[in-house]
Amino acid sequence: MVSLEQKASEWSGVDPKDAVAIDEINLFEKLGLQTFINLSTNFYIRVYDDEEEWFRSIFSNSNKEEAIRNQYEFFVQRMGGPNLYSQRKGHTALIGRHHTFPITHKAAERWLHHMQQALDSAADIDEDSKTKMINFFRHTAFFLVAGVELKNQNKGTGCKNCSHHH
Amino acid sequence: MVSLEQKASEWSGVDPKDAVAIDEINLFEKLGLQTFINLSTNFYIRVYDDEEEWFRSIFSNSNKEEAIRNQYEFFVQRMGGPNLYSQRKGHTALIGRHHTFPITHKAAERWLHHMQQALDSAADIDEDSKTKMINFFRHTAFFLVAGVELKNQNKGTGCKNCSHHH
Repeated sequence: MVSLEQKASEWSGVDPKDAVAIDEINLFEKLGLQTFINLSTNFYIRVYDDEEEWFRSIFSNSNKEEAIRNQYEFFVQRMGGPNLYSQRKGHTALIGRHHTFPITHKAAERWLHHMQQALDSAADIDEDSKTKMINFFRHTAFFLVAGVELKNQNKGTGCKNCSHHH
Repeated sequence: MVSLEQKASEWSGVDPKDAVAIDEINLFEKLGLQTFINLSTNFYIRVYDDEEEWFRSIFSNSNKEEAIRNQYEFFVQRMGGPNLYSQRKGHTALIGRHHTFPITHKAAERWLHHMQQALDSAADIDEDSKTKMINFFRHTAFFLVAGVELKNQNKGTGCKNCSHHH
């Protein structure tokens, strides 16, 4: 069986080693909480303003402030800071918490486009940290594509006889 | 929609606040790596030796040493220590990584039975830490029951016409 990680690496083009380069230094200690808040705020302003309606609509049932906080708390927790996300919300459960969203390859690329723009405009993040972070984000985005695809396979897509069950 | 956390709290009987009491102190700093290795080793010896074949068989395709390491690295990461699990394996993705296991209410209780025994026999863990940990484990076990149930709903269980798809 091809693992989620293998799929994530293949689809993202990011080597597994590069995906965890965020752990080579403590990015939270290096950058500080406010930098993560700024990044997620900048990112979600772009997302909720996206000219591409199909992408913007993925977030239409989510509260923007809540989305920002969920994201930067997860980043802080994953990049060497305190477990802000888990202390407030419980397990990060990345795949479980994204299972209702239509995370296609195209959606992952659009997500990454906005995150790249947000990183490009972040004067408070050095180039080395940006490289580490975008590799992590890219790998993670396709890890979620793989995780959500798994769920859709389980749904038995294409069977018209039982579509009322889903 | 009832969230996974709400289901986990209801089924486990553990208040959400008690489930994250593990964060009130840094349990990794208090207990140290070896204590977590001991606990997971003790736990899996019991699991792989379980007289209940239905439960033991859940783990029959997993390597025992790998299962032990996966578990204590996750515990260390979640309870204040370094991100050992994510540095080696990527996202913890608790629900995504358990989706192939038949995690029923009964299986959660059996898992917790063995973990309680393992904790009871752990002379290197104080009573307060044991209480915090078992509440976290209990809540987490039923969080996974809820997460896996979600997947089974998606599978359209009970539709005989499309069983060949699953």
